[in-house]
Amino acid sequence: MATFGDIGLAAGVNILSALVFLIAFAILRLQPFNDRVYFPKWYLKGLRSNPAQSGVFVSKFVNLDWRAYIRFLNWVPDALKMPEPELIDHAGLDSAVYLRIYLLGLKIFVPVTLLAWAILVPVNWTNNTLAISQATDKVQYSDIDKLSISNIPHGSQRFWTHIVMAYAFTFWTCYTLLKEYETVAEMRLHFLASEKRRPDQFTVLVRNVPPDQDESVTECVEHFFLVNHSEHYLTHQVVINANKLAKLVKEKKSKQNWLDYYQLKYSRNPSQRPTKKTGFLGLCGDKVDAINYQTAEIERLSKEIAEERERVKTDPKCIMPAAFVSFKTRWGAAVCAQTQQTRNPTLWLTEWASEPRDVYWDNLAIPYVSLTIRRLIVAVAFFFLTFFFMIPVTIVQSLANIEGIEKRVPFLKPVIEKPFIKSLIQGVLPGIALKIFLIVLPTILMMMSKFEGFLSISALERRSALRYYTFNFVNVFLVSVIAGTAFEQLDSFLHQSANDIAPTIGVAIPMKATFFITYVMVDGWAGVAGEILRLKPLIIFHLKNFFLVKTEKDREAAMDPGSVGLDTGEPQIQLYFLLGLVYAVVTPVFLPFILVFFALAYVVFRHQIINVYNQEYESAGAFWPDVHGRIIFALVFSQLVLMGLMSTKGAAASTPLLIALPVLTIFFHRFCKGRYEPAFVKYPLQEAMIKDTLERAREPGLNLKGYLQYAYVHPVFKNDEDDEDDDLHGKLEESITIIPTKRQSRRNTPVPSKISSESSADVIPEKEF
Amino acid sequence: MATFGDIGLAAGVNILSALVFLIAFAILRLQPFNDRVYFPKWYLKGLRSNPAQSGVFVSKFVNLDWRAYIRFLNWVPDALKMPEPELIDHAGLDSAVYLRIYLLGLKIFVPVTLLAWAILVPVNWTNNTLAISQATDKVQYSDIDKLSISNIPHGSQRFWTHIVMAYAFTFWTCYTLLKEYETVAEMRLHFLASEKRRPDQFTVLVRNVPPDQDESVTECVEHFFLVNHSEHYLTHQVVINANKLAKLVKEKKSKQNWLDYYQLKYSRNPSQRPTKKTGFLGLCGDKVDAINYQTAEIERLSKEIAEERERVKTDPKCIMPAAFVSFKTRWGAAVCAQTQQTRNPTLWLTEWASEPRDVYWDNLAIPYVSLTIRRLIVAVAFFFLTFFFMIPVTIVQSLANIEGIEKRVPFLKPVIEKPFIKSLIQGVLPGIALKIFLIVLPTILMMMSKFEGFLSISALERRSALRYYTFNFVNVFLVSVIAGTAFEQLDSFLHQSANDIAPTIGVAIPMKATFFITYVMVDGWAGVAGEILRLKPLIIFHLKNFFLVKTEKDREAAMDPGSVGLDTGEPQIQLYFLLGLVYAVVTPVFLPFILVFFALAYVVFRHQIINVYNQEYESAGAFWPDVHGRIIFALVFSQLVLMGLMSTKGAAASTPLLIALPVLTIFFHRFCKGRYEPAFVKYPLQEAMIKDTLERAREPGLNLKGYLQYAYVHPVFKNDEDDEDDDLHGKLEESITIIPTKRQSRRNTPVPSKISSESSADVIPEKEF
Repeated sequence: MATFGDIGLAAGVNILSALVFLIAFAILRLQPFNDRVYFPKWYLKGLRSNPAQSGVFVSKFVNLDWRAYIRFLNWVPDALKMPEPELIDHAGLDSAVYLRIYLLGLKIFVPVTLLAWAILVPVNWTNNTLAISQATDKVQYSDIDKLSISNIPHGSQRFWTHIVMAYAFTFWTCYTLLKEYETVAEMRLHFLASEKRRPDQFTVLVRNVPPDQDESVTECVEHFFLVNHSEHYLTHQVVINANKLAKLVKEKKSKQNWLDYYQLKYSRNPSQRPTKKTGFLGLCGDKVDAINYQTAEIERLSKEIAEERERVKTDPKCIMPAAFVSFKTRWGAAVCAQTQQTRNPTLWLTEWASEPRDVYWDNLAIPYVSLTIRRLIVAVAFFFLTFFFMIPVTIVQSLANIEGIEKRVPFLKPVIEKPFIKSLIQGVLPGIALKIFLIVLPTILMMMSKFEGFLSISALERRSALRYYTFNFVNVFLVSVIAGTAFEQLDSFLHQSANDIAPTIGVAIPMKATFFITYVMVDGWAGVAGEILRLKPLIIFHLKNFFLVKTEKDREAAMDPGSVGLDTGEPQIQLYFLLGLVYAVVTPVFLPFILVFFALAYVVFRHQIINVYNQEYESAGAFWPDVHGRIIFALVFSQLVLMGLMSTKGAAASTPLLIALPVLTIFFHRFCKGRYEPAFVKYPLQEAMIKDTLERAREPGLNLKGYLQYAYVHPVFKNDEDDEDDDLHGKLEESITIIPTKRQSRRNTPVPSKISSESSADVIPEKEF
Repeated sequence: MATFGDIGLAAGVNILSALVFLIAFAILRLQPFNDRVYFPKWYLKGLRSNPAQSGVFVSKFVNLDWRAYIRFLNWVPDALKMPEPELIDHAGLDSAVYLRIYLLGLKIFVPVTLLAWAILVPVNWTNNTLAISQATDKVQYSDIDKLSISNIPHGSQRFWTHIVMAYAFTFWTCYTLLKEYETVAEMRLHFLASEKRRPDQFTVLVRNVPPDQDESVTECVEHFFLVNHSEHYLTHQVVINANKLAKLVKEKKSKQNWLDYYQLKYSRNPSQRPTKKTGFLGLCGDKVDAINYQTAEIERLSKEIAEERERVKTDPKCIMPAAFVSFKTRWGAAVCAQTQQTRNPTLWLTEWASEPRDVYWDNLAIPYVSLTIRRLIVAVAFFFLTFFFMIPVTIVQSLANIEGIEKRVPFLKPVIEKPFIKSLIQGVLPGIALKIFLIVLPTILMMMSKFEGFLSISALERRSALRYYTFNFVNVFLVSVIAGTAFEQLDSFLHQSANDIAPTIGVAIPMKATFFITYVMVDGWAGVAGEILRLKPLIIFHLKNFFLVKTEKDREAAMDPGSVGLDTGEPQIQLYFLLGLVYAVVTPVFLPFILVFFALAYVVFRHQIINVYNQEYESAGAFWPDVHGRIIFALVFSQLVLMGLMSTKGAAASTPLLIALPVLTIFFHRFCKGRYEPAFVKYPLQEAMIKDTLERAREPGLNLKGYLQYAYVHPVFKNDEDDEDDDLHGKLEESITIIPTKRQSRRNTPVPSKISSESSADVIPEKEF
């Protein structure tokens, strides 16, 4: 059992490392040669020029202005200064809504903490249950436990305080959630209403076009919509399976990078031509001249790309039975997206098209039939991943236990027994052990989501986030709570039935408070501070800068701004909500640690969103229902656990009172779902009609067809050095009457669309899922 | 423990009573004076004239033709003869689909029974586990048990047979379900596609029209749809809260019945004027002249009705914020019904209007806000109803146990101990005890559904059916299984945890086989045979005929054809599916009893649907997804129970094999849901477009507005002796331009609509929920 001293030491270590990160960041960010690492967002927006343009040579790399270092914490007020509407303009609604999750944490937990410390802590402290049981039964306890519910005697009337507090916390959390849902829904609707014209407002993705012997897919689509949406259909683009082509282009790009590297190497050291081995990973095989080899490879790939491009154009097998169908009005698109087209619900499936940069092109080629099977496979795989991943975590955690280590590795005993080392191990190790396990996970989960066949990056991330949260809940939270206690309580728990789970967890919860406190400090404090330092992008940028960069354009490409990372970030925050809600009544001493996390993370991520992260897509806060739902889940879970704990504390009479809480909470959730969720999944016709009418009044002569014609061309055709795309466009246009004003209207394309076409090519292939 | 002898006796008693019912029916139905009880459907369709028109006086009441009695079982082939398309035409698709549930039972269980008897029964029989345990442990067992899984020794390799059979039964059931879902969906789509023009095809119900200070509801609705569905909006009718008026009209009708009764009484016995007491139920209060009193009452009510009618017309408070909005095309209505109209998802709620006779008018007046709260209240109430109803059932069941009765009422011992009586009690009593409890229930459940605020009678019945099934599952099935065994196993079961439920039920299942066999015989055999006799309607008809009927019209009104009664009938069938699936592997001897039920019920209900029941509404088989879902539930439950049983039988190694079954079954269910359910809840635009186009080509000059103008007028205004409705229509028309050809087109109203307007007034108020 950790004492206040252990916690204090762990806190010291973590505060220290957090401070080191923050100071390192403060110094590094002021150096001009790191500018692209710490302010890439501004470069991408074209609002910041290279700092290397002027001044003496040294100041290109090192900031010599000593005054800058004095104000080294200036970034904090800077990050907080930007008002929310400007932030939405600057970084998109998704980012702004994402930051609101941290704010929500503060909104919920500040009053909860104050109330808990004002009422629960004195109520817990003024007992001596633990002191007595220590004297009689030799039960070990820590000072932390004295502030927790464990210190209340069995069957005491004081438990009424905890029940009243549970009600108060639940009502406050629900009230805050309601207000927040309302605000976010309002923000989303306002954002969508005030948005400029975008292709996705007019476009619907149609999948599973049935095969027709007499007609090609494009004819089939055209006929179908001319008949069934006669007054609204405008144009369409069939989906081309260019996955192989995209792969070849990517491969070529990689070879080009290597060629650049070897050429630079050769130019720096002309005495020796660089060589490489042709075998696996350059580790075996024949040794050849690297520059010649790469040049030949690129030539070969260029040829292959040209061939593949030709094949895609002509081979009907590359035309997928799917199309982006555009309508004359937003109303028409809203209608088509929300209705069923034919008798057979697996044909002519319509859904809103994501914005072009959000489309996950690889999955458009998956036929619908296999989707159901893929879903089953992924569900089973995820089940096994979740429940067999538990084994290594449990082993590491039991090893990280001091007594466990001493037993298994007895010769380390003298070292471990030193008080400082012992505290260090007990405080820091379990958290780190967990963290390592969790680093590889998001990649696997994202692969699963991709395999499952979601059609947009935002949907992929949302699904991965759900899985990651489930995983965290089972493997970080539950396993830490139960397995840890299972070792302490000598297997007596292992053979319990499902009915006893709530009491089992309830009893274990207060005992694991110290473990989770250290976890919060390692993962929440030091981890968040480490995020702002961006050590990995910093190193990679400088490596690339040294080995690859020749031109300004290359330097641009070497930047890796990253993104918010909803798929891992949101579940991580949710774990803190879960911990906070579970411990609010049980161990109120836990709450300040959570508060520090939320405050620190809010500032850090606000800074990162303003200065670093690039927005990959704009889903207009579509993930909020998930956020809301998971907090509700945490709340209900905390109520059940409290019920379990109470029943073992001789306060079983409280069960009827406490059972009302989850019932009311779930009812509240259903109410919120009915009231606010449609704002995130449906498309009101009135809004569409208003925008249509306004647009018609403002721009009566708008050439919409020209605007939408190429909005959904696969990025591999769109951004191509070879500029062959015009050729393909010509090909695709054949069956469509050519509109003379086309070029004119394309030049009028508004800004978001321009960015989207850039980013879909530049950013998405960069990202590693 | 019941022996073969007990079962045989019970079977004898039940077969005898079933035979008595059938013979009584065969005789009674041939009597002309019962004609309206046994063939009301034909009278309602106007295809059968009064048999009392011709012939001698006696033959008006009694059939003297002896030849008719020889062919007394003729109704069976008659019932089976009518082909399905004709049946759909005659009684509607709902009835035809309802009959398919029984057919589905036969399709599933005939092959299952054959396979089980060919393989499982010999495997079970050729053991002597029970004989040995009887010899050593004095465990009682019956012959039935020798055929069940209980006779397999612990840990035997023979369990593999049962596992293979579980797989075979699951695959067969799923295959049959799939085929059936496909057929029913096809039938529904065909039915909808070939249907004549009906008002509900063009109409959408809009609720929660937001209040507007400047505009009345009707103006508000018109403006909204003229703006947002400009090309499709045709007309609308606001919903009027005429609940009080309807109540007054109903009250007047009842008083009129009493007046008729007293007048008839007086005319038969002119010496004494009938009197009645004015107090509660005519039991207390002043004695007055009944005829004068009722006449005065009717006069008072007529005046009140006139006043109320006036008030409804003028008072804006009686206009509900809801309207039936009709569109120019089916396409327009399909679009409006499936889309969200405004930002706020609780305003301007649109859904397909039910056909006029299916509308449950009382609930249209409920504001949306209170619906969520009503739903919570009903959920809690249903929970308590389900779980506190258990107590009396358990008590009665334990009393129905022979040993229990002897202990509690020792002086009855000599009577009970007689073998015949003992067998009778053991065989029949538990079933009857249960049945009595279940008779009052549907009324309560229907009241709950009404309180919850569903808008159509079909939806009310579907929800009641779900509740009734849940109730049956907990209180008939689970309580019978566990409480019964709880008494037998001396409370050892009571304190088990949730995890052990599957084994607990699994172990109890084979022991309760005999109980459920008698239940099937009482409820399924004798009950179904009793249904055809229609004893209650028979008696009531003759009472009414004697006391009230003066004219032919009165006699028409005295008929009570009843209806299929989805809300109670379907859950009852589902219980047999559950029993059949659960016992298929465990006690195959059970299956033939189920088969007899399905075959008998199919014939009886086919007869009733053809000759008796009146169709209240046509939902085009909308309940099939519920039927499918509940059979899947029964299947999964049976698999879990088998798993539990196996784990206690020393065949725990089978668990991984058996766990795959529910996973696959649930996956199958999700597949079916995705593939077929949309056919029951969505409205494909293509179909709408086809019908619109055809109609436009066939009837270019159709006056649709005239056709739809009064389709959704509250029945209380529509069918009124006073014929004041024209007045109201005039009132309602004021704001609408009058179309000269209106009367003309109303005369053209097709048949279904005519029936609907009749039945909505005649039948719906007759039904007692």
